[in-house]
Amino acid sequence: MRLMNNYALYVNKIPVGVLGASGYAGRELCALIARHPGLELRFATANERRGERVRIGATEVQFVATDDAPLGEAALVFSALPHGTSAEWVARARAAGCRVVDLSADLRPGNPRPEILAHEGDIPYGLTELARARVHDAELVANPGCYPTAILLALAPLVECGFVAPGATISISAASGVTGAGFSARHDLLFGEVTEDFRAYGVGNTHRHVAEMQASVNALGGDCDLLFTPHLLPVARGILATITVPLVAPLAAPKDVPHSLWTERYAGEPFIEIGATPPALRDVVRRNVVRIAAHPVAGTRQPTLLVFAAIDNLLKGAAGQALQNANLMLGLGETAGLPT
Amino acid sequence: MRLMNNYALYVNKIPVGVLGASGYAGRELCALIARHPGLELRFATANERRGERVRIGATEVQFVATDDAPLGEAALVFSALPHGTSAEWVARARAAGCRVVDLSADLRPGNPRPEILAHEGDIPYGLTELARARVHDAELVANPGCYPTAILLALAPLVECGFVAPGATISISAASGVTGAGFSARHDLLFGEVTEDFRAYGVGNTHRHVAEMQASVNALGGDCDLLFTPHLLPVARGILATITVPLVAPLAAPKDVPHSLWTERYAGEPFIEIGATPPALRDVVRRNVVRIAAHPVAGTRQPTLLVFAAIDNLLKGAAGQALQNANLMLGLGETAGLPT
Amino acid sequence: MRLMNNYALYVNKIPVGVLGASGYAGRELCALIARHPGLELRFATANERRGERVRIGATEVQFVATDDAPLGEAALVFSALPHGTSAEWVARARAAGCRVVDLSADLRPGNPRPEILAHEGDIPYGLTELARARVHDAELVANPGCYPTAILLALAPLVECGFVAPGATISISAASGVTGAGFSARHDLLFGEVTEDFRAYGVGNTHRHVAEMQASVNALGGDCDLLFTPHLLPVARGILATITVPLVAPLAAPKDVPHSLWTERYAGEPFIEIGATPPALRDVVRRNVVRIAAHPVAGTRQPTLLVFAAIDNLLKGAAGQALQNANLMLGLGETAGLPT
Amino acid sequence: MRLMNNYALYVNKIPVGVLGASGYAGRELCALIARHPGLELRFATANERRGERVRIGATEVQFVATDDAPLGEAALVFSALPHGTSAEWVARARAAGCRVVDLSADLRPGNPRPEILAHEGDIPYGLTELARARVHDAELVANPGCYPTAILLALAPLVECGFVAPGATISISAASGVTGAGFSARHDLLFGEVTEDFRAYGVGNTHRHVAEMQASVNALGGDCDLLFTPHLLPVARGILATITVPLVAPLAAPKDVPHSLWTERYAGEPFIEIGATPPALRDVVRRNVVRIAAHPVAGTRQPTLLVFAAIDNLLKGAAGQALQNANLMLGLGETAGLPT
Repeated sequence: MRLMNNYALYVNKIPVGVLGASGYAGRELCALIARHPGLELRFATANERRGERVRIGATEVQFVATDDAPLGEAALVFSALPHGTSAEWVARARAAGCRVVDLSADLRPGNPRPEILAHEGDIPYGLTELARARVHDAELVANPGCYPTAILLALAPLVECGFVAPGATISISAASGVTGAGFSARHDLLFGEVTEDFRAYGVGNTHRHVAEMQASVNALGGDCDLLFTPHLLPVARGILATITVPLVAPLAAPKDVPHSLWTERYAGEPFIEIGATPPALRDVVRRNVVRIAAHPVAGTRQPTLLVFAAIDNLLKGAAGQALQNANLMLGLGETAGLPT
Repeated sequence: MRLMNNYALYVNKIPVGVLGASGYAGRELCALIARHPGLELRFATANERRGERVRIGATEVQFVATDDAPLGEAALVFSALPHGTSAEWVARARAAGCRVVDLSADLRPGNPRPEILAHEGDIPYGLTELARARVHDAELVANPGCYPTAILLALAPLVECGFVAPGATISISAASGVTGAGFSARHDLLFGEVTEDFRAYGVGNTHRHVAEMQASVNALGGDCDLLFTPHLLPVARGILATITVPLVAPLAAPKDVPHSLWTERYAGEPFIEIGATPPALRDVVRRNVVRIAAHPVAGTRQPTLLVFAAIDNLLKGAAGQALQNANLMLGLGETAGLPT
Repeated sequence: MRLMNNYALYVNKIPVGVLGASGYAGRELCALIARHPGLELRFATANERRGERVRIGATEVQFVATDDAPLGEAALVFSALPHGTSAEWVARARAAGCRVVDLSADLRPGNPRPEILAHEGDIPYGLTELARARVHDAELVANPGCYPTAILLALAPLVECGFVAPGATISISAASGVTGAGFSARHDLLFGEVTEDFRAYGVGNTHRHVAEMQASVNALGGDCDLLFTPHLLPVARGILATITVPLVAPLAAPKDVPHSLWTERYAGEPFIEIGATPPALRDVVRRNVVRIAAHPVAGTRQPTLLVFAAIDNLLKGAAGQALQNANLMLGLGETAGLPT
Repeated sequence: MRLMNNYALYVNKIPVGVLGASGYAGRELCALIARHPGLELRFATANERRGERVRIGATEVQFVATDDAPLGEAALVFSALPHGTSAEWVARARAAGCRVVDLSADLRPGNPRPEILAHEGDIPYGLTELARARVHDAELVANPGCYPTAILLALAPLVECGFVAPGATISISAASGVTGAGFSARHDLLFGEVTEDFRAYGVGNTHRHVAEMQASVNALGGDCDLLFTPHLLPVARGILATITVPLVAPLAAPKDVPHSLWTERYAGEPFIEIGATPPALRDVVRRNVVRIAAHPVAGTRQPTLLVFAAIDNLLKGAAGQALQNANLMLGLGETAGLPT
């Protein structure tokens, strides 16, 4: 147990902290940590709600101001602070000697590295199944966005094998529950506005996640463009991505190849499920898994494959994957404390 | 009013009937007819619920068995019977001298013409805005499916102008509220199963509507393939289609061309709205309109346009368009009795 | 039309204005006025959104600042301003010569009369069916709250006939859709918080509506206490009240008396429906009606009656009833422009 | 290794079976058993779906016909068969030597004992916290209904202390998510019918659960009548009961007494939470707890207390409590395998 020597006082639990704990991802992290067999929540910050005691899952948490977080007492800090704000606190936590998992976009590929963290070397993009070894050895990890987690895990085997038609556009129509927009008191997120509605937003490749997805696909060797169209679903949690992939050539055995491509690539992965039918949100909600299914297409001259991916945006898409990464960074079992 | 002479007894109202009135589309038709200034509901059939009196909107309807429908008393009959069953009753209503709007798939393009109606000549596909003159003169009209109504009205201007890349695949990701699946007591449509869920169905171009959409695009001169992926939304009503169109060439003035293409093609149309932003279900629900918006795409080498279309599946996607067609066939004002 | 002489310039339409038009009730008012055969919307105010053009139903409205409202141009003004703020603007509109329907609680019975309106004489509480003649003659009407509208219309016949056990407590468990809480960007009204939830609020007779309900029951001669417990429903619109009434004596003919009590009291009322079975929200949503049903109770020694009432909180519970009152005040047909 | 948890303490798993496993309660039971540290699912029956393999939570279950259930291999059998059908299978399981927890109404108080089980002696009504010792010693337990679980646990301390006014009526307005109606393909439970709706059902003390609740209150020494009015909520899971209790005398210290009555009565109970504010469904959903809060009432001459109780109808209201009882019957820790 790598960290046992450093934290001998805490016989059974490694102390961790959560910065920005009052949002949806932050609260999910606190709930996961409360049930984790090897972690102890040392602090949870929420500036506007400092002092409040809040029931989160079966536990109770008292928020402190971010300025008052005893960073030095934590072995690892999760930052669920807003994009732009997070980098500074990541730097402070690093200066205090903490390992850090940053859930914001500040350190993800495709985004400019903040000056304050210029001295950090390689910062793995924590899509755990694609970067396990680097995450294991890292002291700072950029946790992927929710949409990119689902989409990149689905696309990686196709891109790695060179199945995507060169220069083609992969069209991704995705839909997310409202917790993906964060715990923001916005008129457009009121129940009265969202119920019985459905709409696209961030259209035309303007969504923040496009950059990290395109950069990641390029890094996997893909010569293709992504077109990403997210939609807002009248559900609390869950993301479904419907991905249209132009293929370099027709599939030889259209019914079998797709399935085996993913089952072989992800054999033994505890948090990846390959389905025979398109996944539904209810297959994945409250679980730290991505569920992927590929489906052949009839009637198009351009050889095409449909790929579906579903996750819980707050678990595999945020807090769950952050904890999965933290488990690796702390030498704990990768699946510890994570619902499957 | 063209038919007034034939129905002198009914000074102000033309008698119509609804076959299959207990489903969602049938009930919507009854509700529309009840408020229509020029129509009178003579009968509404529902075999399993014969004899029941049902409140529909602000009116009350008594269902009769389909066998007991006094077809001869109606100037026009709407058939909202199931696919496969409808054709026989369309034939009977035609034999009784009725004009007919058939809401089933039995007579739509891309589907084999039922033997029993082989003698009928041209049967217009009642996408009203694309077939107004033919509908006006017809005695029998095949009412389009809900998804095709939204999608074809959105695509028509692009196809007609030759903007779609030849041989390309137009990828359509669409989502529908559960009333699109009909009033069927199926386990998978229970509230407990649908709430907080989202999933694709009929994937890989296997949905019934693919045939009529592809046939219609071909009829418009399109040399492109459709890939249609429907999804089930946890809402009661409404369809949103997100359409990725590969273009033959980049747009000259990407911000303007899309909008004007539709506003010019559909100038003066009372039931078509061209939006500057992607439409939401709540823009169209309980209205007999389609709302269309086009959006340019950044970052793809293949010139691409995003087109969105939203309708109420029970109004413009079923009962509303059926009544729009009936209004034309009966010489009434096209917009009579239709909510905008 | 009574006021036509005063507004000779507006041949067919009487000009009205809406103060506080950006909330749910204000928008509903604008939508109703847009479809009203005898009214014209002269202005709609919304301070924070001044200048915005907004689609409301099938029309478009441009908000102005409340200070910029041309009060003098309106024959009647609806105030949908917040409680506490409304009285001042009611006074200004009255000073400008307008008739006023105030949708706030400021002038309702059980609430202290604001000083600024002390000079106004009798201000009818606009539960239209119970105060029709007074509303007809009034220049200023206090429009009832949503819960009180449903509950008082249901209770009035019982109270008037002396059926309620003296000194007893009428227990009212009611539930409202979230639009009842107004268009407020509050965390607790976010979709992610309300979906799949249900809870009581304002418990122990602390809700603002208790005062006007108890005062109204007393005014009807009732010697009973109300216990009102509202709940927040995960729906957009609609109120259902479940009312337990201790009776002074057992019902003679338990199956019949309840029904006839209401059908006789409200015979001919266009907006009151007496049902044989408990009403559901979907019986009343998007309609300006209250639906009432009474049901006998077995197995209790204390003779008891259950009474249910359902309304659309934005129509019969707010904007619809406000318009119903305005129609009377302006000498228009009471039902003009109101959906049934 | 410190990650070892108490799951490892159970060397041998006790085999159990589930009769009627395809409904909501049956599936919940299978999911709980799959995660239980001391139990092993030996069989799960579902006649109409025999042979199907179904994913339930993170596990997979293959249904067998009820006739094919190897009753002799199970130490304990849960029957989630329909009311009326269950008794016969309970008898068979008993004859095969199994302990049985019957989730149907067949053996609950207030219902006639089925002839086939006449020979069984005392059959505890498994409201665990009120019958712990008897359940511990029992071989057959009648698991309470969902509404009665919430309501009786809330009322018991008041009734036991004699706080309820003699002869008075306790009015209970309760609301349940749709899974409470079972996994039945009924038109009235379709998403399109339930969404945005709310309605009472089983009114006037006609609901099946009235008998077991009244019998249980009587057994606790209560001299009061219950009036139970359930409602159908547009949510999947959860029950909230709002209970109006006429008191024998005013509370001495209205702010404190209520709370302490429950906290003292239920001190140390792992599955009972006493709140300071009214509980919401989201406080209890997916947890095997009941959350109770009492609230004083102002403004009524009849001293009255409001009591609220919330549970997850499928956990504490069905499968969870069944497992809690089974744990006791099998000598396992009462909380084993139950989410708090």
